[in-house]
Amino acid sequence: MNRIDRLAEIAARHRLDDVLVFNEADIRALTGIECDSACLTLKAFYTDFRYAAMVHRLAPWLKVRDIRRLKPRGRRVGYCPSLSHARFLKLQNAAKGAEFVDVENEIKALRMVKTPEEREGIRAAEKLNVEIWNEAKEIFRAGMTEREMARIIKRLMVERGDGEAFETIVCIGANAAECHHRPDDTVWNGREPVLVDMGVKLGGYCSDLTRNLVPKSVRGLYRRVYALVEEANRAAVAAVKPGMTAAKLDKVARDIIKNGGFGKCFGHSLGHGVGYEIHEAPTVSAKGRTVIEPGMIFTIEPGVYLEGNLGVRIEDMVLVTENGCEVLSR
Amino acid sequence: MNRIDRLAEIAARHRLDDVLVFNEADIRALTGIECDSACLTLKAFYTDFRYAAMVHRLAPWLKVRDIRRLKPRGRRVGYCPSLSHARFLKLQNAAKGAEFVDVENEIKALRMVKTPEEREGIRAAEKLNVEIWNEAKEIFRAGMTEREMARIIKRLMVERGDGEAFETIVCIGANAAECHHRPDDTVWNGREPVLVDMGVKLGGYCSDLTRNLVPKSVRGLYRRVYALVEEANRAAVAAVKPGMTAAKLDKVARDIIKNGGFGKCFGHSLGHGVGYEIHEAPTVSAKGRTVIEPGMIFTIEPGVYLEGNLGVRIEDMVLVTENGCEVLSR
Repeated sequence: MNRIDRLAEIAARHRLDDVLVFNEADIRALTGIECDSACLTLKAFYTDFRYAAMVHRLAPWLKVRDIRRLKPRGRRVGYCPSLSHARFLKLQNAAKGAEFVDVENEIKALRMVKTPEEREGIRAAEKLNVEIWNEAKEIFRAGMTEREMARIIKRLMVERGDGEAFETIVCIGANAAECHHRPDDTVWNGREPVLVDMGVKLGGYCSDLTRNLVPKSVRGLYRRVYALVEEANRAAVAAVKPGMTAAKLDKVARDIIKNGGFGKCFGHSLGHGVGYEIHEAPTVSAKGRTVIEPGMIFTIEPGVYLEGNLGVRIEDMVLVTENGCEVLSR
Repeated sequence: MNRIDRLAEIAARHRLDDVLVFNEADIRALTGIECDSACLTLKAFYTDFRYAAMVHRLAPWLKVRDIRRLKPRGRRVGYCPSLSHARFLKLQNAAKGAEFVDVENEIKALRMVKTPEEREGIRAAEKLNVEIWNEAKEIFRAGMTEREMARIIKRLMVERGDGEAFETIVCIGANAAECHHRPDDTVWNGREPVLVDMGVKLGGYCSDLTRNLVPKSVRGLYRRVYALVEEANRAAVAAVKPGMTAAKLDKVARDIIKNGGFGKCFGHSLGHGVGYEIHEAPTVSAKGRTVIEPGMIFTIEPGVYLEGNLGVRIEDMVLVTENGCEVLSR
């Protein structure tokens, strides 16, 4: 069943008179159209003056309406609470007494399992991402700053792909203890480890990869932490199986890090879905109730962070198969 | 008075017990810190595990708290309805009966007048943007696609600046009738006009510029429309004066296009503020009630769009001075 039909099915299941989808990636997954000012409903595609011509051209079968006239139909309206509160207040006002029903998780779930076309697109994006990493790290030299290293990666991403899926992270030495450190003027002495978290966009698909450049000179503590994080990453990749919950997968990696004595230093979830957006469903965390299915694509990225000292994260993207998973980051 | 003090003043004026600021650009304008997962309140800086170390280092004077424990203080809480409805529901729940007061326009207004440092930063970004346009257009050749042209611009933006402030728009011929057309595989025959809307980021500041490459061969209708849009742009630039409303400025350009017979083909507002974000206050539209002040920076971008036929937009950025404005796009 295609996703538009499954949207109608969600509406039927909740006895909704209409459903409002505002999120750009949701709209793309449902219609194929890329438009950052739109609302897809069960009956029409609402957009503004600037995009109407494009939608007419790309999807002549969609009824195109002016988004300024958007008014929910009926008494029960499905919606996603990730919309802005301001927009919600307007909708509530326009709908006069309609009941709004949160169907966000179900709408996000429509694109957890990727179509064959999406798998190809995401696989190609991550393949390119790995190539860029391999090329960039050969260019890195002692004396370069984090910013310069990030620029090398960004340039390759624009030349070979469609640019960054998110702001490239480059952390020299102790800066890696800040999970989402912004590249700054820290200079690489060639002896410290360098953590790089990067994702190229290609054809509208995102990719995600974290690697660590580890010179021979790094200290014993770093090596021990690195080995532990690597073990957690490998164990989780090996454990992926359709039918298990995301929480169970998270636990595989988390237990290894906990048993290694660094449980408190792994403060984020194990992974997240990747596709039209860099972060999408499923969330692979201790609370993740999603049951893993073939066709899902998500990251596996355990990490250990010691403030002011060091940080290690090893991140791969995997595509769930019938029996396990394909690692897209090789 | 600095912006943090003016935030406290907004709170006092509305008799608020607390104010919650979630928007990344607002937080940067108020504290200097770049963090995409934070809430600034009157008393503390709430953020998550991943950013706490960075905030400690950059702003040791701020009380850093865990964003998962965020709870509004008191009975009256100022907020911005642009936050997600989901987050609003959580806050409402945590605040048990507190009244939420919309102070978004006042918070946005805190950064309409740029600091001297911001003016320098935005001026430098737009200067670079113009240089990149001048260089890119010399590389454009018949036979190139929109995507290829966009890639030339993106590459220059990464090499010289910090990449794109927004997805670069390149429109060949009739594609320019779609205001926010995405670069596609349309091939340039060298005889059609090419519209480019581009903005480089530099030091965290955005820039914005729309130019049209007009080969000698273009038709009479295009030339007439171009001359009209140019007249509207120039008249508006010449009309900028502190003390006038944004609506009055919008009218200067709109009247010219209306009198030229294309009033219905100018479906967007005349301009928008530019700074940490590509679109910020003030909105320069027919409804814009903002009174223009020295130190504001916004675009002036009249356009005429004839579906399936042609599109022209000429966009400059201006910095309001004591007597008029400085055009940053030269």
